[in-house]
Amino acid sequence: MDTIQSDNYPIYFNNSIDELVSFVKKGAYSKFFILTDENTGVHCLPIVKSKLDELGDYDLIEINAGEESKDIDFCIGVWKMLIDFGADRKSLMINLGGGVVTDLGGFAASTYKRGIDFVHVPTTLLSQVDASVGGKTGIDIDSIKNIIGTFTQPKAVFIEYNFLKTLPPRQILSGLAEMLKHGLIADAAYWNELKSSDLKKPTVQLVYRSVEIKNVITIEDPKEKGIRKALNFGHTIGHAVETNSLINDKDPLSHGEAIAIGMICESYLAYKKTGLSAEELSEITHVFSDLYPRYTIAESSFDNLFAIMQKDKKNQDNKINCTLLTKIGQCNIDNICTEAELRESLMYYINL
Amino acid sequence: MDTIQSDNYPIYFNNSIDELVSFVKKGAYSKFFILTDENTGVHCLPIVKSKLDELGDYDLIEINAGEESKDIDFCIGVWKMLIDFGADRKSLMINLGGGVVTDLGGFAASTYKRGIDFVHVPTTLLSQVDASVGGKTGIDIDSIKNIIGTFTQPKAVFIEYNFLKTLPPRQILSGLAEMLKHGLIADAAYWNELKSSDLKKPTVQLVYRSVEIKNVITIEDPKEKGIRKALNFGHTIGHAVETNSLINDKDPLSHGEAIAIGMICESYLAYKKTGLSAEELSEITHVFSDLYPRYTIAESSFDNLFAIMQKDKKNQDNKINCTLLTKIGQCNIDNICTEAELRESLMYYINL
Repeated sequence: MDTIQSDNYPIYFNNSIDELVSFVKKGAYSKFFILTDENTGVHCLPIVKSKLDELGDYDLIEINAGEESKDIDFCIGVWKMLIDFGADRKSLMINLGGGVVTDLGGFAASTYKRGIDFVHVPTTLLSQVDASVGGKTGIDIDSIKNIIGTFTQPKAVFIEYNFLKTLPPRQILSGLAEMLKHGLIADAAYWNELKSSDLKKPTVQLVYRSVEIKNVITIEDPKEKGIRKALNFGHTIGHAVETNSLINDKDPLSHGEAIAIGMICESYLAYKKTGLSAEELSEITHVFSDLYPRYTIAESSFDNLFAIMQKDKKNQDNKINCTLLTKIGQCNIDNICTEAELRESLMYYINL
Repeated sequence: MDTIQSDNYPIYFNNSIDELVSFVKKGAYSKFFILTDENTGVHCLPIVKSKLDELGDYDLIEINAGEESKDIDFCIGVWKMLIDFGADRKSLMINLGGGVVTDLGGFAASTYKRGIDFVHVPTTLLSQVDASVGGKTGIDIDSIKNIIGTFTQPKAVFIEYNFLKTLPPRQILSGLAEMLKHGLIADAAYWNELKSSDLKKPTVQLVYRSVEIKNVITIEDPKEKGIRKALNFGHTIGHAVETNSLINDKDPLSHGEAIAIGMICESYLAYKKTGLSAEELSEITHVFSDLYPRYTIAESSFDNLFAIMQKDKKNQDNKINCTLLTKIGQCNIDNICTEAELRESLMYYINL
């Protein structure tokens, strides 16, 4: 596997931790900081610690695991630690963790002293195939996901496949939803390859292909004016379901579990609005229903879900906007969906 | 006076409010928001309100006047109001006010939904000649000025000279310090012109020239890797004096008053380190001493001042960094100054 070239930065797949050490050594940074979460601290940091220790002193900033840590209050905590540790403009932030760490760390670094360098070392499947590529950073306010953020590219991304071996199956499934999305929006052959694979253990080649697809799309449209919106497939409804679950459920849905629901609903919308065939709707529905546990959405929660969708970043002029498939491997951006249509698509999921 | 072209955006000087109205009308924005402070709301908003009302509905976000409003907590307040008002990615933020409003508003807009358009309508002399030009946005944490921010250019700047007529003399003096700085670092003829002018009422031509100087420097080096550091003259010591005053004084120094002290001290450092002549040091000292009230700095506050300077964004490797004049109209960036040198320069001011 070759190193993938993104928008002025490399994405390493081979000997990634060695590449990280070499990157830091070459960078002439005044200090470096590792942002991580408690889980990564336990499972992944030990794998890389001996190599990082070659680099000399660094400060570790550890946050709690989970989406709650993406709140602005935790971001303020990270900023204050950077201040207290004396981070200057020549400091480097290494975001070692899942999407919460890379999104929050990217935002904190991109705004600290008007921007210091940062790199991502994604440790979950979800962050390897999604969050770490494309230059989006973000934090939440009042549980509104990524409502505050920047478009800022990391200086490099280091993807270490071995980290995936430490993940529980539910976290593999969470990342897998984004990989399946990449096939659905852009590459029917990849979708078919995924379908015929052992998806409990995606190979490094499959991970690599997902990063390639996301990278091509985000290079073409870094600021999401057009084609990048393809990546939002499943996310209009999925984000709302995820946010609602985060607020109300004791054991909230993972991102991928929520997005899988979103992709089923939005495939139904595609069947109604953009020409997705009944056969392909059925195929998509079956793949996701087989992989992901059934989730109960009460009709009484629809009003909440709509209220969340109304606040979605992707909207314009108060209209709810979806990316919809035209067939497997192709999609159409900027489809306005009415409340009635969205309600019908949720009913489709409920009645499965 | 021609419209000044900056880094992909215009800076209007003629019929600026008409230009603003025309800009908003042409922009096809879904909504627009005016961020202002209580003083601007009283003194400036009425002057432009009838014209803005031509544009239809807008939401007004008003913050308290003063540097305290640049704290992250107020920024969160602005973000939450944008959420509540339903601002989408096609919304426009109009920052109508002084530097606090343009810095905070620029930061809030540049990070809301990963960036919405914003324009500046600076209402103080300081914000017209300094904050509104050059693309720096910023907020404070724990009274550390601009510790968090972005480099993001506004879509346009509208400089309305008539606003200056509403300003108290102390605010004129605050902006004047930056104008004098522009002469000192880049244009001896402009410095001489300023010296021979009635500085209680700077003409629009003088304001224009300051914006020209700042604009040329910031276009050449938008992210402050090199020459833009020239604009930091007076600010290493000045910022520390300002922050210390903000924390401890009942009636804190204005930005310009603090920077004037910083420029006297740093001119002394230039005399000791970078070849500024004794005559020019004397000339600079007299100009600032005549214009600005004497301020008492106790020797017992020196430790505090150094502690603040240690946290300055401009430092690298824990060394305090100053821009120093070589002669009037020319300067040198990146001069490391020792604690002893800085202490001596403060003593120079104290003993005047």
